[in-house]
Amino acid sequence: MKRLNIGILGFGTVATGVADLIRENHAEISRRTGYEFLINNIFVRSLDRANPYNLPLTTNINEIIMNPEIDVVVELMGGIEPSLTYIKTALEQNKHVITANKALIATHGNELFKLAAEKGLMLMFEASVAGGIPVIKSLRESLIGNKIESLAGIINGTGNYILTEMKEKGRSFSDALADAQALGYAEADPTFDVEGIDAAHKLTILASIAFGIPLQFDKVFIEGISKLESDDIKYADQLGYTIKHLGIAKNLSEGIEIRVHPTLIPKKELISNVNGVMNAVLVKGNAVGPVLSYGAGAGGHPTASSVLSDLADISRMLDADKEHYVPYLAFQNQALSNAPILPQAEIYTAYYLRIKAVDQPGVLSDITHILAHHDISIELMIQTKSVEDNLANIIMTTHETKEKAILDSIRQIEALTNITGDTTLLRIESFGS
Amino acid sequence: MKRLNIGILGFGTVATGVADLIRENHAEISRRTGYEFLINNIFVRSLDRANPYNLPLTTNINEIIMNPEIDVVVELMGGIEPSLTYIKTALEQNKHVITANKALIATHGNELFKLAAEKGLMLMFEASVAGGIPVIKSLRESLIGNKIESLAGIINGTGNYILTEMKEKGRSFSDALADAQALGYAEADPTFDVEGIDAAHKLTILASIAFGIPLQFDKVFIEGISKLESDDIKYADQLGYTIKHLGIAKNLSEGIEIRVHPTLIPKKELISNVNGVMNAVLVKGNAVGPVLSYGAGAGGHPTASSVLSDLADISRMLDADKEHYVPYLAFQNQALSNAPILPQAEIYTAYYLRIKAVDQPGVLSDITHILAHHDISIELMIQTKSVEDNLANIIMTTHETKEKAILDSIRQIEALTNITGDTTLLRIESFGS
Repeated sequence: MKRLNIGILGFGTVATGVADLIRENHAEISRRTGYEFLINNIFVRSLDRANPYNLPLTTNINEIIMNPEIDVVVELMGGIEPSLTYIKTALEQNKHVITANKALIATHGNELFKLAAEKGLMLMFEASVAGGIPVIKSLRESLIGNKIESLAGIINGTGNYILTEMKEKGRSFSDALADAQALGYAEADPTFDVEGIDAAHKLTILASIAFGIPLQFDKVFIEGISKLESDDIKYADQLGYTIKHLGIAKNLSEGIEIRVHPTLIPKKELISNVNGVMNAVLVKGNAVGPVLSYGAGAGGHPTASSVLSDLADISRMLDADKEHYVPYLAFQNQALSNAPILPQAEIYTAYYLRIKAVDQPGVLSDITHILAHHDISIELMIQTKSVEDNLANIIMTTHETKEKAILDSIRQIEALTNITGDTTLLRIESFGS
Repeated sequence: MKRLNIGILGFGTVATGVADLIRENHAEISRRTGYEFLINNIFVRSLDRANPYNLPLTTNINEIIMNPEIDVVVELMGGIEPSLTYIKTALEQNKHVITANKALIATHGNELFKLAAEKGLMLMFEASVAGGIPVIKSLRESLIGNKIESLAGIINGTGNYILTEMKEKGRSFSDALADAQALGYAEADPTFDVEGIDAAHKLTILASIAFGIPLQFDKVFIEGISKLESDDIKYADQLGYTIKHLGIAKNLSEGIEIRVHPTLIPKKELISNVNGVMNAVLVKGNAVGPVLSYGAGAGGHPTASSVLSDLADISRMLDADKEHYVPYLAFQNQALSNAPILPQAEIYTAYYLRIKAVDQPGVLSDITHILAHHDISIELMIQTKSVEDNLANIIMTTHETKEKAILDSIRQIEALTNITGDTTLLRIESFGS
């Protein structure tokens, strides 16, 4: 039996998952790949730690990245440094690399892929997006006959858990977040998850491999879920929508949209029914139409399942010439496009507005006048009156319009005398399946 | 630009889709693969036919399968012969082969893969299952770190369209079928679709690549949807279930279950909400948990999208050594297992029964006595009385039990004096997601 020699950086949940699977499923793995996967060494910060299978551990990074026996280095530490330096060194030492590090790929992928290409090495990252769902391979290898028109993903399980709890149990954001933290779904500092940064890292990667553009994390529009009120979830429900925190990317003739924000989706669409910590990615190709992939977006074993997929690909291509590799970002390195990323004010979509107004004659007329002036067409309106304080919630949905027009309108609406508090602005998308 | 020379057998919907995509998306295809895909020749029965792009056509099969310029032969004619002979000849002439022919792979795949292996050639079949959904690649390449525990698929769009119409509009089977035929979703002779044979072909393929067993179409248990009554769909709905025509395969320690039949699934599970002609495949791996893939299961462009995925794989590996190929059935050829396929009477699942009885004292007692005697535990029961004819419908769901026990019970129940007509027996499955 041929042997694939693996060095792992980090020994957290995912690395433990990789070790578990190589042990539990070694018969299946060998029957499929013809290889025995062997963990030669694991880089840890301290040797004084749990090591259930008595695997070789080292605190000396060079014992892995400078070790000539090791074929592939699997980076599972997360964060930018020292992961970036270790991966560069591993590539310079002619080792293939696998990483689950979405932040690193989204922000430093362009330079890493360049280095890997120069060295003729594979640099794989299936585990960096949507845990165990094989969405990277689908985009890189399966949908190649398509022009990808758009994609939309629930790609942060923590956020989806919180939104599901808010909807199903009527809980507040902070209450649902506390629960997610108690269950281990959310970090003590939940910023990356609830403010959409983690989703934006993943969306950056998906947009690149879908459309053939360089990684451009700094151009992603990002809006989190921390300001969502349970009232909006309730009103959206009454209007026939579920609110999901989506990463959306669209490939338009004018340019590319890449945006992460809470989104109203018609309830009957499949992605509306993806609940709890589960992830789903909907891709629309001009040949295949909509394709949705659903599964566990995090967790040691699901994410390790994606690492093993990359290990299998590397084992199969170990002695093959680099011209047989799949291109890093799905498109040939020299064929990436410089299509512009559209500023958020330039996008077109439908909107949900909740305006808080003093319930007096003329308010509605003033609001509709402003919207009409900006050529914004209202699809539907509900006015709810609070008896206690003489305040009304005016909820509106609009037809598709330019975001700049909506933002300008809100500014004018909020300047009206009878408007109290901030207007809630959410975007509506329909994927038709 | 490197060139992939393609010969196509047949010029129906899928072949036209392949020609469309190679033309419409040629820039994307070349940017991704680095290859120009060129259709050298298409084998047709008659030259007197539509040919929108003026592609070279031939009625002489040898101009394709004996043509030394052609790298890959794409068989899109369907049926067993002459497809089988043509594919064998193409392999003997050292051509890689792609086929969308599920019937051929399910019934003759073992010998074709053997021949392809001897010749060191690729034989690809992504388009044979679930149209544009990349489920074959997922199983062959992405989930390799998993022991696949089970899979369940809506893999016949015609059947799913009929069931969706029956449920949503209360229509009869024959009425919904006539509609499907008028819309072009069903053939004039719908047997393959509505009797489950097409689904069984696809399930045979999925089970092989999921579990690493030879193709064994003749051992699949097959039950169609033609005997389903709208009453059962209505009662299932009242009990919280949707009826879908599923292909189910399970990998148990005692052996392997492979079965196609109408199935009650809890409404809130995602696969219950896959409607119309859409397909979905749910795979459960011991690492990744449940993964569902959803998309168009038929149609020229979606199916052509899968053919192009195979063309891209072949182009990438064209000059590579055969040891770098993905194994045909996901497992190394010599590593296929001889795990037994369990007879249907040996499977365990939950059941739905509808018994038609004369509404007289003692009937229910007789029925429950029989079930108790076979150790079958009833989960839920509804009795509905028809005022006109003094007949009652007794609807029961059971806990998990052996199929043999249910069949023996029904035989005894139907022998009771107050039972009229055949008992309806349906299976219930829950996938937990």
